[in-house]
Amino acid sequence: MTDKLLNERELNFQLYEMLDTEALLERPRYADHDRAVFDATLETARGIAAEYLAPHNRKGDANEPTFDGEKVTLIPETKAAWNALAEAGFHAAHHDAEDGGLQLPEVILRTCVAYFSAANISTSGYSFLTIGSANLVKSFASDELRERFLPPMLDGRYSGTMALTEPGQGSALGDIRTTARPAEDGSYRVFGQKMFISGGDHELTDNIVHMVLARIEGAPAGVKGISLFLVPKVLVNEDGSLGARNDVALAGLLHKMGYRNTTSTVLSFGEKGGAVGYLVGEANKGLSYMFQMMNEARIGVALGASVLAYQSYIHALDYARERPQGRLPGSKDPLAPQVRIVEHADVRRMLLQQKVYAEGSLSLCLYASSLFEDSHTAPTDAERADAAELLDLLIPMVKSYPSKYGVIASDLGIQILGGSGYIREYPLEQYYRDNRLNPIHEGTEGIHGLDLLGRKLGQRGGKGYRLFLEAARASISEAAGSKQCAGLAAALNDALGILEQLSPELQAQVAADVDLGLANATAYLDLFGRVVVGWIWLRQALVAERALEAGAADSEADFYQGKLHAARYFMDWELAGLASQAQLLRAGNRLTYDMQDAWF
Amino acid sequence: MTDKLLNERELNFQLYEMLDTEALLERPRYADHDRAVFDATLETARGIAAEYLAPHNRKGDANEPTFDGEKVTLIPETKAAWNALAEAGFHAAHHDAEDGGLQLPEVILRTCVAYFSAANISTSGYSFLTIGSANLVKSFASDELRERFLPPMLDGRYSGTMALTEPGQGSALGDIRTTARPAEDGSYRVFGQKMFISGGDHELTDNIVHMVLARIEGAPAGVKGISLFLVPKVLVNEDGSLGARNDVALAGLLHKMGYRNTTSTVLSFGEKGGAVGYLVGEANKGLSYMFQMMNEARIGVALGASVLAYQSYIHALDYARERPQGRLPGSKDPLAPQVRIVEHADVRRMLLQQKVYAEGSLSLCLYASSLFEDSHTAPTDAERADAAELLDLLIPMVKSYPSKYGVIASDLGIQILGGSGYIREYPLEQYYRDNRLNPIHEGTEGIHGLDLLGRKLGQRGGKGYRLFLEAARASISEAAGSKQCAGLAAALNDALGILEQLSPELQAQVAADVDLGLANATAYLDLFGRVVVGWIWLRQALVAERALEAGAADSEADFYQGKLHAARYFMDWELAGLASQAQLLRAGNRLTYDMQDAWF
Repeated sequence: MTDKLLNERELNFQLYEMLDTEALLERPRYADHDRAVFDATLETARGIAAEYLAPHNRKGDANEPTFDGEKVTLIPETKAAWNALAEAGFHAAHHDAEDGGLQLPEVILRTCVAYFSAANISTSGYSFLTIGSANLVKSFASDELRERFLPPMLDGRYSGTMALTEPGQGSALGDIRTTARPAEDGSYRVFGQKMFISGGDHELTDNIVHMVLARIEGAPAGVKGISLFLVPKVLVNEDGSLGARNDVALAGLLHKMGYRNTTSTVLSFGEKGGAVGYLVGEANKGLSYMFQMMNEARIGVALGASVLAYQSYIHALDYARERPQGRLPGSKDPLAPQVRIVEHADVRRMLLQQKVYAEGSLSLCLYASSLFEDSHTAPTDAERADAAELLDLLIPMVKSYPSKYGVIASDLGIQILGGSGYIREYPLEQYYRDNRLNPIHEGTEGIHGLDLLGRKLGQRGGKGYRLFLEAARASISEAAGSKQCAGLAAALNDALGILEQLSPELQAQVAADVDLGLANATAYLDLFGRVVVGWIWLRQALVAERALEAGAADSEADFYQGKLHAARYFMDWELAGLASQAQLLRAGNRLTYDMQDAWF
Repeated sequence: MTDKLLNERELNFQLYEMLDTEALLERPRYADHDRAVFDATLETARGIAAEYLAPHNRKGDANEPTFDGEKVTLIPETKAAWNALAEAGFHAAHHDAEDGGLQLPEVILRTCVAYFSAANISTSGYSFLTIGSANLVKSFASDELRERFLPPMLDGRYSGTMALTEPGQGSALGDIRTTARPAEDGSYRVFGQKMFISGGDHELTDNIVHMVLARIEGAPAGVKGISLFLVPKVLVNEDGSLGARNDVALAGLLHKMGYRNTTSTVLSFGEKGGAVGYLVGEANKGLSYMFQMMNEARIGVALGASVLAYQSYIHALDYARERPQGRLPGSKDPLAPQVRIVEHADVRRMLLQQKVYAEGSLSLCLYASSLFEDSHTAPTDAERADAAELLDLLIPMVKSYPSKYGVIASDLGIQILGGSGYIREYPLEQYYRDNRLNPIHEGTEGIHGLDLLGRKLGQRGGKGYRLFLEAARASISEAAGSKQCAGLAAALNDALGILEQLSPELQAQVAADVDLGLANATAYLDLFGRVVVGWIWLRQALVAERALEAGAADSEADFYQGKLHAARYFMDWELAGLASQAQLLRAGNRLTYDMQDAWF
């Protein structure tokens, strides 16, 4: 199985050629590490992925969690995997050593996560949810709460969830109705129902820590009246021992198309008098806390989409290299041997599409992780601020591009295998079903389009946007005079010009009429995403060209030639149509805005 | 359930406003019918769909067929539905009255099939496979075979399959290895294995008639040595009674992502000495017989894709009209009531996309059916020949456009519902899984692209292609001077101009180097398909404009306004990028052709 679990060469390219991950060792936080530690960590992750996660990916899909009214049952491999991840320290990998963590850089943790997700995205989901909720506890909870709940979340005794969504509210967080009533002891009693809560119940851990958004009675309406609560499944005594069961009940499991081994739950809080909850941070600031964690969660979802796309790619490639079928159009001899399907131009087209989506998305996500890292540990304040600003601007594309194009890569994987791609005897259809969740959670394209055009593009004077343009122009300049990359840079330069002309015009449209001006925000998001990934591909091509000039040979040369050729493909085929798409947007096309409900 | 089963108004529009189905009554074959017969037939079909098919669509998905080594078990509703379809005469609907058929026009049968597929595409699959194989028996089998096998296929006692694909061959039919050895009694003994045979085994009927492609021992290599055989599951005595079990064994069931209640089988012929098979028609002409049936089968698959897209559309629309969530961007009052999501421009964009794909595809398929009808029953020989020629040219687009864009419509259905779209508690995810089969069977886009550019575009002096251009130009002329449609016609005219410039250049590229020239054939197919569906949308708009001018009011006016607005959407958004796509093709972009296996 390991041979089809991502591709070490590709990851090394991203970590050490595209990014200068080794340079992180010069920063004080990582001074005690060396490259060998990074590599050993990745090797451990790969081993756990191969041994504990990949083998039951299909089994977990075929035997989804069940609920008998009392308990949730998962296939037993889930618990073994949870233990392996926890014992190897991955739940605390990015935490400081003094908190029991491995004090590893974000980009190393994310690459480990890439292995886990590639092997089994639903079983490893329990860990990522726990990592995310532990981040909230660590960052915003009181010392007392942190001391009581964080250690067992980091060492694998407790798991965690993020409980935002409710049946009546969906993406509109301002309409959350779950309420919290102050109790005499300073805690709260929480009442309400949450839906689509991943990992919301199971027997993997002694306890589950729900991070719940709720409205304190009497709080202001809308987003300004939402607070964050820690609501454990089982109450925890002050000495850390487990107490009574809290008033949190599993109302039912939801039955997903994919991602099946992660429970998706409806949770009822307070049906028996009120669930005990503890306010995290200050009242009415819950959404801002959640937002501070969202960039990580969004990179996480996008990375999951990227690696599922990547798995679809390498399985399809493997099949295409082995499967003989038909002959090239020019071959007229029915007795000539069949060719392997990788020889057919249209199969190569599909594989190239998969490659540019999967590797472009993976590269984008790891780059975003490096910005996240820089925003915390870059040497100067200015570098940190710039990294944070650029990341914030890019997040809508980082979340949306891999989610959208990743599913297309998985779809192409099915198509390359044909009938075999459609049956559960091969893994492609599961990647497709699993990957289809990613355009939904952590914000749909519709939400991110509004966020990008309505908010982020202009925020803080358009600083993030300018930083992106500068970074892209720097790569274009770098390619001037290059034999292989000058044409690619010219194509990106054209695309960048389109974006630069378009963006202020759209901002003016929004200023003139916000509802009409934002009507096509999703199309703008898609256009921006393709420009960003075009830039990522130019950068990959630049690295590849340098390596070839430095004498890369044999399989190494093939690897870099593949990068260059994929970049050419991206510029020619994936950026085609950008100008006409921009033209529709510049003209303020109002068709979707003008459409009437009654006309459907 | 009926209220969400297609839309009668839409079907009437297609049958009686876009097509002049009533005019068929003037043709001798339909002289004994009247419009009331057509409508009553459709009403019966709708009733059976609602009563016998829709109620177990989800159940059949959740409880797929099982094989215990002896027998295949299906949920019992499958048999009840089979009986209802057979008893109402739908297996013989298009056959002549003297053969026990209802002697109905193709387009009425197809519309009935649309209801059945919309309600339950996998259960109704057994009927369509039987209809297709009965067509082969009727058209090419000897009188003796026809008398023995056709009546029980038409009245529901026997079912049928098309057994083409083998494990080692896939789309390359010339490489079929199943062999047939002449026996002394004039029959043959068949040996080999077939794969992905839909409906290949089950207990719905007393017998299953497999129409098997095989190579008579000593036949020429390649496509010229393939013959067609009728191989029953159970031998049939001359008096029509059932005899011994034939040497056809179910080697196993395949487990599909969707379409689950149709068995997908691996069949072994001749493991115990040879399966008795009867040659159909002449030796070595099997593939040409099969091809004569393929247009119908391809329209059938495309229609299935269209109605699954349509079901995704109406379920998503229904949800969008009922589900309140969020507010418009301009609304700043958190206490303002939530709006229904159909009010959000981006949801309307997704619904419009669904509408243009689903209704455009449905319209295209029924138009193709009317061409098929005309090719058999149009008044003059010239009209018949032209209809056949045009249909033949259009078939690659008719098959591919609905299959490709239908899945996108189903994908958008999931996205509109968000988390609810991803769970099996709602029907959207099943439509998505079911619909994903359609780009695979009856020829992938890759196959149809080669067929279009390498063969059909130029066949018989490019007659079919010229007929299409003339038909499209006639619609453009019709729109000249129209207030609502002139702009749409101008957009289509531009697209047509792009196609006209491109096609001969690509033919020259193919003539110069067939392998290189066909490398981007799939992209050409997609471009051609968008032009064809653009033409379909212009025609729908023309009909709508006339109806509005004639005074359509209230919900009728809304219906026609919807058609006009959707046509505008198609021209602006779906034809955008056509020019840049054509530019890549004209330039003979060789990136997929030049890509090397080792570079992936």
